[in-house]
Amino acid sequence: MEYIKNPMKIEERSFEIIQDIIDEIRPDYKFKDEIEEKIIKRAIHTTADFDYLDILKISDSAVDVILEALKNEATIYTDTNMALSGINKKRLDMLGCKYKCLVADEETASLAKEKSITRSMAAVEIAAREDGRKIFVLGNAPTALYKVIEMKHEGKLDVDAVVGVPVGFVGASESKYELENTEIPYIISKGRKGGSNLAAAIINAILYTI
Amino acid sequence: MEYIKNPMKIEERSFEIIQDIIDEIRPDYKFKDEIEEKIIKRAIHTTADFDYLDILKISDSAVDVILEALKNEATIYTDTNMALSGINKKRLDMLGCKYKCLVADEETASLAKEKSITRSMAAVEIAAREDGRKIFVLGNAPTALYKVIEMKHEGKLDVDAVVGVPVGFVGASESKYELENTEIPYIISKGRKGGSNLAAAIINAILYTI
Repeated sequence: MEYIKNPMKIEERSFEIIQDIIDEIRPDYKFKDEIEEKIIKRAIHTTADFDYLDILKISDSAVDVILEALKNEATIYTDTNMALSGINKKRLDMLGCKYKCLVADEETASLAKEKSITRSMAAVEIAAREDGRKIFVLGNAPTALYKVIEMKHEGKLDVDAVVGVPVGFVGASESKYELENTEIPYIISKGRKGGSNLAAAIINAILYTI
Repeated sequence: MEYIKNPMKIEERSFEIIQDIIDEIRPDYKFKDEIEEKIIKRAIHTTADFDYLDILKISDSAVDVILEALKNEATIYTDTNMALSGINKKRLDMLGCKYKCLVADEETASLAKEKSITRSMAAVEIAAREDGRKIFVLGNAPTALYKVIEMKHEGKLDVDAVVGVPVGFVGASESKYELENTEIPYIISKGRKGGSNLAAAIINAILYTI
């Protein structure tokens, strides 16, 4: 069997094919700018789903705010270990950024139990107590996204930006719609689609521009 | 903001909505059997992508073989840490199964360098040296899937079954097509779609039936 075995070549060729397919299926499609193009193409690269041409929405300041936070040793909080494992941690280490998923911590579990909330929500409460710039990268839990919005609204959480792409059928779409109506800089996937893989891909796309 | 906060209720309601949507968009759709239904619905639950009604293909013996292997302390080999983190490890621990992603190991890196192959391929070679039942769960690397097929063909790898759902534009579709034409029991996603999240979801769906 003959197949391409060079990872760099595979990635390069993949992005060429993605552009070819866009030219074919959406000849009039225009990206707003280079960074939006990079984010959307990496979303498609990760999912093979061209719906992301239409459902990924990046608020005006989101990329600049995320870049600035990443250059200032921000902490990335994910809602799943899956999203955390997909993020390019070498790059984050080079920038002096931290990254964590608090969902499985003991402290989170006991706070969730005490307050009868999801562990995803408890993880946001615990993150809020920590110092430093904060980027939430959420691909799974609408309850985490709602909690971020709630705590920001109540003045209890300093958050720089949210990559809010929970996938699913209960609350995912609604929670992303709520986020659109806040002042928080955001990147969302409208509707039901999204996921931990997508959440990681979006952060990676931004990281690769630094 | 009012939203459902009970994780069990969220999951239950999600599967109800998935069935409602299938009834609506594909009123004549029939699952082959209960386990296929569980696997496909969990794939949709993880991706919100109803394409999986048509592109997920489960070979006749795949589920039985995977169940039998899981009940006999099989090892699950994933091609990404992302897939590994999505798998329900509590369940695997209860069964006495092992699970690992060898891709980032030092031994893998040096074998890949020595042989000028991808780390994903080297990881398969290293897995082949280990004893015990083997299930490969691949959501990312066509090269890993090709390597499994190659080594099995050469009689150098004992593999029970493969969940082969690499996503992407270079080799993904082709590698899954190759797998269909082997004797290896398989679960694949036809075409470009797939992913680490999907790979984990498929194994979890099967685990939840035990």
